[in-house]
Amino acid sequence: MFDEDGFISRDLRPLAAVPGASGFTDDAAVVAPPPGCELVITGDTIVAGVHFPFGERADLIAIRAVRVNISDLVAKGADPIGYLLHITVPRGTEEGFGADFCAGLTTCQKDYGIGVLGGDTVVAPEDALLSVSVTAFGAVPRAQSVRRFGAQPKDVLFVSGTIGDAALGLLAARGDPLPDIAEADVEVLEASYRLPRPPFGLQQAIRRHARASLDISDGLVGDLERLCRASGVAARVDVAKVPLSDAVTRTCARDQRLMKVVLTGGDDYQVLASVPVDRAISFAHDAREAGHMVKAIGKMLPGPPQVSVLDRDGEPMAFRRTRYSHRA
Amino acid sequence: MFDEDGFISRDLRPLAAVPGASGFTDDAAVVAPPPGCELVITGDTIVAGVHFPFGERADLIAIRAVRVNISDLVAKGADPIGYLLHITVPRGTEEGFGADFCAGLTTCQKDYGIGVLGGDTVVAPEDALLSVSVTAFGAVPRAQSVRRFGAQPKDVLFVSGTIGDAALGLLAARGDPLPDIAEADVEVLEASYRLPRPPFGLQQAIRRHARASLDISDGLVGDLERLCRASGVAARVDVAKVPLSDAVTRTCARDQRLMKVVLTGGDDYQVLASVPVDRAISFAHDAREAGHMVKAIGKMLPGPPQVSVLDRDGEPMAFRRTRYSHRA
Repeated sequence: MFDEDGFISRDLRPLAAVPGASGFTDDAAVVAPPPGCELVITGDTIVAGVHFPFGERADLIAIRAVRVNISDLVAKGADPIGYLLHITVPRGTEEGFGADFCAGLTTCQKDYGIGVLGGDTVVAPEDALLSVSVTAFGAVPRAQSVRRFGAQPKDVLFVSGTIGDAALGLLAARGDPLPDIAEADVEVLEASYRLPRPPFGLQQAIRRHARASLDISDGLVGDLERLCRASGVAARVDVAKVPLSDAVTRTCARDQRLMKVVLTGGDDYQVLASVPVDRAISFAHDAREAGHMVKAIGKMLPGPPQVSVLDRDGEPMAFRRTRYSHRA
Repeated sequence: MFDEDGFISRDLRPLAAVPGASGFTDDAAVVAPPPGCELVITGDTIVAGVHFPFGERADLIAIRAVRVNISDLVAKGADPIGYLLHITVPRGTEEGFGADFCAGLTTCQKDYGIGVLGGDTVVAPEDALLSVSVTAFGAVPRAQSVRRFGAQPKDVLFVSGTIGDAALGLLAARGDPLPDIAEADVEVLEASYRLPRPPFGLQQAIRRHARASLDISDGLVGDLERLCRASGVAARVDVAKVPLSDAVTRTCARDQRLMKVVLTGGDDYQVLASVPVDRAISFAHDAREAGHMVKAIGKMLPGPPQVSVLDRDGEPMAFRRTRYSHRA
């Protein structure tokens, strides 16, 4: 059975090898941002049955918990430094959980150059939901952080990676009916849902060029609405320009209605950025240099904060709801 | 019924009025420590049925969530700045919950001069447990933070406030048998459990004088063991010197065995500090100036990390377990 003290001393402590972490011998962290930098602090909680399926692999849970925060740091233009981990484990969780969970953390620490700076564990009653909160810290040169507000009319709206893989993958994971597509495509989509791939490395291009930015966790259209509200501008998206993976393209070709799921589903963990027109080429160039594709999908407009989405025929699309709400 | 969007826009946003918080329009915070300072970051999760009773008042839940972090900052010698809030609310929670919860936060923000810097809310299935994670940030002059490690033999061991009120109060709150004491004492003890009172204001004296320090959340003896382990020293506690409230004194007079609950029960949220002998008088003086009583209860000793507790006759006490484990 899961053992709290063993989890901390055997599994977690070796991960806490960064300055300020003191090898998990303290539940607090002391952090000084690098000279000339500010700290960006962000946090996300993921809960079994809400953000990941019951019975998910422990290492994938850990990776998800970290990556959903990495996408926030990238969107703010921050270089990841470290994180605090708060985990609530139902009593009766199997013994191997701790080691597997920490294997996932180890992968993330290598991938992103971060270390766990402290935290705590709670053993909850057997019927509690497994819950993981990660608070992540990143550094950004003073006054260069990129927020949700600040977008201006005429800015070019960019998105990183591809959109909708996870939303269709969630349908697959839940066993919801998908059109008749190849099994390989189903597997690719489901894997996209289970393992977010935030555009780590894009943070420098974001802070150099973007006026406003956020990560897409609750759907492209809904999160763009948030950016518009925070910035006090409108936006237009051309569906034909939204970057889609081959699997999503093939799935939507079978059933055009799924395009709405693609545009409003959650868990993309890509970045939406509002970039001044005269910086658009440089932004795309710097992103490519960092190994990431970004695509212009529309523009910011004057007017009250609203988003219009034009389909391939240039007709406005209507949505019953624009945002995915994580609920079990 | 509890409404997530209303909770954020109506209840939480007005609380986010500190620099870097951007009025809760971003889920990330940008924080620069004051010049010459480092950030201390700490976090604690509290869960219904584990850390507070089911059906607890929403404002008391919020106050508890903040205060259990304030005690951490004080113990590290840090001045509180702000916090991130992550809250998981079971679907079907009553509508007034959000406003009441934020009333509790408002009280804390005034008391400690802090503001909420961001965070997120999750609406979980109806049978999920209400869970609140607070990540708190404080500032400490560079290299002056006080950690669990650093205690040295001959140091004087101090504790703030009084010990055991919450542990006996938990028995009362659970309806466990207490000896025949006045109803007023029962009420005082139960109130101590429901509303922790960390020694806010003591942080300056701690960073001026203490070599090592932590807050007591899982019991005096067990947390002292943690300090000893992190510092590589032993410790001796004289029970006769442990500061007790009148209610605890009267209760233990009726049943001496409850002294073990006092010494090993949880939820004190007072501070244990290891102070060099030649600083002991100044520490007590500065604490008093800040409005807090600290009391010398023993000393640090050379030797392997272990704690000996001597009863009023100078005889070593034996404990079946030295630490309170928060479990439902």
